[in-house]
Amino acid sequence: MSDGPWAFDAWNELRPGPRFSLADLDTSATPGFSGGSTKAGHLLAEIGEATSDLQERLYAHGRSGGTRSVLLVVQGMDTSGKGGIMRHVVGMVDPQGVELHAFGVPTPEERRHHYLWRIRRALPLAGRIGVFDRSHYEDVLVVRVDRLVPPEEWEKRYDEINAFEDEVVGGGTTIVKVALMISHHEQYKRLHQRLERPDKYWKFNPDDVDSRAKWPAYQEAYQAVFERTSTDVAPWHVIPADEKWYARLAVSQLLWQALVGLDLDWPSAEFDVAEQLARLEATGT
Amino acid sequence: MSDGPWAFDAWNELRPGPRFSLADLDTSATPGFSGGSTKAGHLLAEIGEATSDLQERLYAHGRSGGTRSVLLVVQGMDTSGKGGIMRHVVGMVDPQGVELHAFGVPTPEERRHHYLWRIRRALPLAGRIGVFDRSHYEDVLVVRVDRLVPPEEWEKRYDEINAFEDEVVGGGTTIVKVALMISHHEQYKRLHQRLERPDKYWKFNPDDVDSRAKWPAYQEAYQAVFERTSTDVAPWHVIPADEKWYARLAVSQLLWQALVGLDLDWPSAEFDVAEQLARLEATGT
Repeated sequence: MSDGPWAFDAWNELRPGPRFSLADLDTSATPGFSGGSTKAGHLLAEIGEATSDLQERLYAHGRSGGTRSVLLVVQGMDTSGKGGIMRHVVGMVDPQGVELHAFGVPTPEERRHHYLWRIRRALPLAGRIGVFDRSHYEDVLVVRVDRLVPPEEWEKRYDEINAFEDEVVGGGTTIVKVALMISHHEQYKRLHQRLERPDKYWKFNPDDVDSRAKWPAYQEAYQAVFERTSTDVAPWHVIPADEKWYARLAVSQLLWQALVGLDLDWPSAEFDVAEQLARLEATGT
Repeated sequence: MSDGPWAFDAWNELRPGPRFSLADLDTSATPGFSGGSTKAGHLLAEIGEATSDLQERLYAHGRSGGTRSVLLVVQGMDTSGKGGIMRHVVGMVDPQGVELHAFGVPTPEERRHHYLWRIRRALPLAGRIGVFDRSHYEDVLVVRVDRLVPPEEWEKRYDEINAFEDEVVGGGTTIVKVALMISHHEQYKRLHQRLERPDKYWKFNPDDVDSRAKWPAYQEAYQAVFERTSTDVAPWHVIPADEKWYARLAVSQLLWQALVGLDLDWPSAEFDVAEQLARLEATGT
């Protein structure tokens, strides 16, 4: 990995290993970072600048026939900070280069199709950074926990998802999968806050309490996701997210690393520079 | 107008009056602002914060059944700074609340429809800020200048556009129309720069020189746009844009004013707060 503002190889350090156990994860930890939220904020801004520069190169390549793109997949329980990632990490990048999709409960039209149908339609164009707020992983998370399809149906989806992602990566898209993990108690505090503050009511949904009541089943479903879909072509990154500032820092670092990995120079001119300069002069100064 | 970080009523001060003449516009002026780019940068950041807060209220309302939205329409000649507005002004707002559409040369499918078809499909959802990088105004600008349809065809479009925008505003959308105006010489400098710097080549398109050669016809077409489509429900704002920092400041102020004009409080809870608190407690802390 190239050294950037934060010399931490988040890409490898936050990957779940073969013996990874979600039950043992310290969601309040801040791997690779010893400072506090203020220092993290400054670092985040620096990473944002660096990311922004690389994103412009990616966009330029897309405009010049390049086929590369990046897809950031963000998963996590309610209140885990997905919205904050969108606002504070994705928000650091030029909106012209970003395609953000939030996947909610499937619409009637979406239900009539294969679960990957709506996902395929939302894949980023060449040169863009696609961002999924929830994703096809809901089809092995809420769908499994709430038994929306029979076990033999969701059981085969892990392999399907791996094959799908392999195809997407083969097409030139770097996939960055992040799971924001908070503790049961942290979720309690955040839901409680939404019920205390009138400016947060709109973020509260009574369904969130229903999901919370199924916490152990969700933990089990996430554990299966990490065990079965963290592949070499599209690994997961498990982010301790009790500290919101840490999660934002870690995800911005992962996005930056993905862009560095594309190793892009500025595209060369697709026209004769001297000829165009002469044409420009001919129009008057 | 409420007072904000910049006590300048851009909404009214930058509207073209009945005797407005584009030929007389000083594109290097900075109406309402006496500082330089550094001071403008700080002010822009402050307006960004204020805008971001209001945007969250708009988004919250959209999630709670509200019907209001905002549509920022950005027009201007090549190199006038439309991309910079997207990056530096639109980029200050939470990307979850923004729907950005860039309108290029119509695709074959778009050509088979009325010129407003693709525009209608891109109108913002309730609660969102829609942003058009170019728009239906191209249908009375490039289309008129390049005679892509007969005069009797584009001639009737001014009234059609006014009727269309009246309908959109009636549906709850505040329209903010900004035209970034640069001088002939300023465009020369900016195009020249794109041909000097390899990291800017990708932004250069030989077609831009063709358009530049038709400068007087474009000025005339813009003058007609201001005369015929600056209505009370959807006025134009003509932004002197030789100073990029001024254009960004002015557009951010206009967007902020539009959001202030919605006069939104936080939506009230759609659930019984005490009941939900009890349900939350029942799931453990």
